[in-house]
Amino acid sequence: MTIAAIADEVGVSTATVSKVLNGRLDVSAVTRARVEASLERNRYRRRARRLPTGAGQIDLVFHEYDSTWAMEIIRGVQTITAPAKVDVVLSQLDGRHRPPQEWLDGVLARKPLGVLFVQCHLAEPQRQQLHRRAIPFVVIDTDSATSASVPTVGANNWSGGLLATRHLLELGHRRIAVISGPTDVLCSRARTAGFRAAHEEAGLSVDPDLVRHGTFYVATGHEHAMDLLTRPDRPTAVFAGSDMQAMGVLRAARQLGLHVPDDLSVIGYDNLPVAAWTDPALTTIHQPLRDMAGAAAQMLLDLANKIDLATSRIDLVTELIVRETTAPPAHLRPTTR
Amino acid sequence: MTIAAIADEVGVSTATVSKVLNGRLDVSAVTRARVEASLERNRYRRRARRLPTGAGQIDLVFHEYDSTWAMEIIRGVQTITAPAKVDVVLSQLDGRHRPPQEWLDGVLARKPLGVLFVQCHLAEPQRQQLHRRAIPFVVIDTDSATSASVPTVGANNWSGGLLATRHLLELGHRRIAVISGPTDVLCSRARTAGFRAAHEEAGLSVDPDLVRHGTFYVATGHEHAMDLLTRPDRPTAVFAGSDMQAMGVLRAARQLGLHVPDDLSVIGYDNLPVAAWTDPALTTIHQPLRDMAGAAAQMLLDLANKIDLATSRIDLVTELIVRETTAPPAHLRPTTR
Repeated sequence: MTIAAIADEVGVSTATVSKVLNGRLDVSAVTRARVEASLERNRYRRRARRLPTGAGQIDLVFHEYDSTWAMEIIRGVQTITAPAKVDVVLSQLDGRHRPPQEWLDGVLARKPLGVLFVQCHLAEPQRQQLHRRAIPFVVIDTDSATSASVPTVGANNWSGGLLATRHLLELGHRRIAVISGPTDVLCSRARTAGFRAAHEEAGLSVDPDLVRHGTFYVATGHEHAMDLLTRPDRPTAVFAGSDMQAMGVLRAARQLGLHVPDDLSVIGYDNLPVAAWTDPALTTIHQPLRDMAGAAAQMLLDLANKIDLATSRIDLVTELIVRETTAPPAHLRPTTR
Repeated sequence: MTIAAIADEVGVSTATVSKVLNGRLDVSAVTRARVEASLERNRYRRRARRLPTGAGQIDLVFHEYDSTWAMEIIRGVQTITAPAKVDVVLSQLDGRHRPPQEWLDGVLARKPLGVLFVQCHLAEPQRQQLHRRAIPFVVIDTDSATSASVPTVGANNWSGGLLATRHLLELGHRRIAVISGPTDVLCSRARTAGFRAAHEEAGLSVDPDLVRHGTFYVATGHEHAMDLLTRPDRPTAVFAGSDMQAMGVLRAARQLGLHVPDDLSVIGYDNLPVAAWTDPALTTIHQPLRDMAGAAAQMLLDLANKIDLATSRIDLVTELIVRETTAPPAHLRPTTR
């Protein structure tokens, strides 16, 4: 299907079809919609450009900036893009998980080599708009929520939850709380499922009162910990959904006069640089953010260079990093304080 | 001076001069050098483009990424660029303070609206290359080391050092150590000068053994603190050059069994988000990184839009944030532990 045929079908000039394809804004909304509909109906796809190596830009789009977390992703992406002389255009969606059309129009006008989405996705019609312009995209998604047809790099959240909980169980803890992310985020559910699986394989049940959800920020960790740790049957260990949450738990413990790890074990998630420098240093699950971002950037450049991907969905492994915030519970130590 | 006259002088075609101006790489190095020399001699300057509001990109270049510190800058820049529909191309110089020519060639080829340099500068010939192409630039520089002719946004380091030290002196401390950044970085020297000025106004002398320098990272704070705090005449307070250094000091104190703030007061610098969540929460000097970045981005867009700057050098004020790591020294408290 050629541009001329599309123009013919819609009853506009080829220049107008071209403008819509190039994201130009000097076409009325009605005409744009009609052209897009025809492109869609006819499964139009522009022939992919052959790219000179080391020319051009990619877009890196965050759902939101989360301080050190986002910086790890940026660093990982640039380990691949910098040597390839590919520039990175940075943006964030103010917490939205779907970009507004206005943002996408800007991308279409700029024609990047490709787009990297971090914790956000495109609605299906938007996906088609990129597809028709032969602009590839890859999702970096700890959430594992994308469809199999979308190239995605993630990390294995379920096994992260399993590793963290096994570590606490092996130390002898039997009342373990989990503070996870929002319930509508799949990675939270996957980690909590890993937490349950570790209990199951140890033949233990999970107290539903000890399973908490909230945002991934410090305040959530602090609030849930204040509640959990003032219960008469308080947990002896907390598995937090992020290093930030874990910092909130450490703070609550200190306010309540509980010593970590003597009175309470705490384990985080992510292994951000700050985790090595909390006081005491945080035991955590290493989520290989830089490697994930690097793998995703490499997939994107491969797609832009018309190299077939061996696989479109990669989950990197998570790993337990033992530092100073986990120890056997008080009743299992030879001498208590 | 026109392109034609330059071409005539060098003995090349106008197309070749145009290619050099546009950063194209299909011109031999020798010819490029000769054209640049002629542009230089004749003070050639392309007429600035009139910009449609909300179109185009700026470059944001870091000397290196320093985790949360860099993220604060990125967020501040995007408070200005996002509403203006200006895209941000991100790069970093692997710790170099001057970009390699290869990097600048890439920028020249891309023709951004302007360039924001963070803790890095251009060599004079590179500055001329941007100038000739009417690409403005602004420096975000806590170092205050740029010349008056370069639009720069910084923060007042000297008064930051003064504020921190006054706070400790007012609490009653008389043996105060300072751990600052590298001596070849002007901001370190300015902060140490503020530290000395606070002592002078209190009629006190500074013990040279308590003045230390190093990198701004956690390890430097930790190393110097281990040395300082094991002296027989150890200081009762430490003024660290960054929040990261302060985290290293907190860690050393804990390892040595010193309680903060009962046995030791610690004050940081920057007020990164993490400072509110260290344990205990860090007293620090707020360096308004987001505001500085926003002000610099606004200056750059003004320059790109041919709006004259009211002033080319802005230093934003620093501010004391008192949290939990500072208190009177033990001998001045009614009851000691």
